[in-house]
Amino acid sequence: MISKNKTKQIRSLALKKVRNKSGLFLVEGNKNVLEVLKSDFRVKELIATNSFISENSETTVRAETITEASAEEIKGISLLKQPQQCLAVCVMPPDAQLPENLAGLSLFLDGIQDPGNLGTIIRICDWFGLEYLFCSPDTADIFNPKVVQACMGSFCRIKTAYVAFEDIIRLAVQSDVPVFGTSPEGTNIYAAELPARAIVVLGSEGQGIKTEISRKTSANLMIPSFNSGKVRAESLNVAVSAGIICSEFKRRTIQQWPIQNENKA
Amino acid sequence: MISKNKTKQIRSLALKKVRNKSGLFLVEGNKNVLEVLKSDFRVKELIATNSFISENSETTVRAETITEASAEEIKGISLLKQPQQCLAVCVMPPDAQLPENLAGLSLFLDGIQDPGNLGTIIRICDWFGLEYLFCSPDTADIFNPKVVQACMGSFCRIKTAYVAFEDIIRLAVQSDVPVFGTSPEGTNIYAAELPARAIVVLGSEGQGIKTEISRKTSANLMIPSFNSGKVRAESLNVAVSAGIICSEFKRRTIQQWPIQNENKA
Repeated sequence: MISKNKTKQIRSLALKKVRNKSGLFLVEGNKNVLEVLKSDFRVKELIATNSFISENSETTVRAETITEASAEEIKGISLLKQPQQCLAVCVMPPDAQLPENLAGLSLFLDGIQDPGNLGTIIRICDWFGLEYLFCSPDTADIFNPKVVQACMGSFCRIKTAYVAFEDIIRLAVQSDVPVFGTSPEGTNIYAAELPARAIVVLGSEGQGIKTEISRKTSANLMIPSFNSGKVRAESLNVAVSAGIICSEFKRRTIQQWPIQNENKA
Repeated sequence: MISKNKTKQIRSLALKKVRNKSGLFLVEGNKNVLEVLKSDFRVKELIATNSFISENSETTVRAETITEASAEEIKGISLLKQPQQCLAVCVMPPDAQLPENLAGLSLFLDGIQDPGNLGTIIRICDWFGLEYLFCSPDTADIFNPKVVQACMGSFCRIKTAYVAFEDIIRLAVQSDVPVFGTSPEGTNIYAAELPARAIVVLGSEGQGIKTEISRKTSANLMIPSFNSGKVRAESLNVAVSAGIICSEFKRRTIQQWPIQNENKA
């Protein structure tokens, strides 16, 4: 039996100030919860249906406390439109420490506030094996439940830190890596030299990168439009841009892709 | 003064059956409305504040009827959380006619139901100058207000048609273009030969492409993961995949990108 008070406490983790004060965040969705249970994150409490607990007993045992609840009770706590069979209250890890030297590709997000876009970008970082995801202090919180939801477990595997751009510049100088901005006036990414070690800055779709930041980048990149019409899309979605940029940087880290035959005749 | 009845009628355009019966759809957001007014779409009625109408008089004059309304009245009609100063009731165009021959790159979406993803994909098609966006009948409706909202005016410029996959196969054979599926077991896209003329099939993230469809594709493509860890993201968001695939196909249509110097020293 879940008390009203507990339900209220957990639901209040939707608020950043409550998360920061308690040091806790909420994970929902069967897949997300199973991923966080398998990760290094501390799962303080797992609230789940009897069947979820028993069907996943090898994994659920990793939670510090397991509380059985009915589907109805979970629905009462859940922030989702379609609650699943479990939710987990987890301990927020500290920000990743800035490294001495950067060894690969990292992103810096400048004021990206849409939780869905941030979650999608975290999945991209996971897919392309990025080294770090740095966020400006005015970027959405990765422990916002909507971000956690959108990134499908990838938040467990990505090193993230909220840092001022000045610190990123310092790190870039120290690591001797270029910082690329993104702007419609930038260099065509397909024609630009893209080193394996770099930081790419992405801004919000409406605002772009802040002027004080774009002044300090080594160069700007752009994804050219292939639409020759007079009127065309003003921009790509920021997560789509992040995906294309990561794809373009990472594919070039392989000198020679093996020639593959198409898999059907 | 907007009547209660009219408010109700317009709000009911959120429902597909109402759109299909009336042949009308709703466009919201200042930017979207201005784009649709500049396009070939018929704007049956523009409902806007006095200031929006006068500030954009050259464009607003294209609406067949202009109704002035207060911000409060627009809020009463709007389906958005943050209504803007106008909305437009437009006539749904018929599906694009299937061409005799395909001349470029087109996508076929197999059961993509998330309106945000569909809207983002429409923007991608616009950006990369794709020829057609074909959708399976179980894909979300592009005239769903959430899709229109997410595609930021790009729906005005993209030729779309809802068609059975059999018709796409017939068109591909007739045009002599390959149909590429997408699957984790596919050919690495960076190593595959990608012709300028092709159809690429994208499925929903959860389900992938339907078996009866993937059986009929010429080959499957995949975007390789660069994450060497034991556990990693299971997939990319479908709109992000669409962006990366279009980028990879289109950049190869240019034989030699001009060498550009980085735009700052």
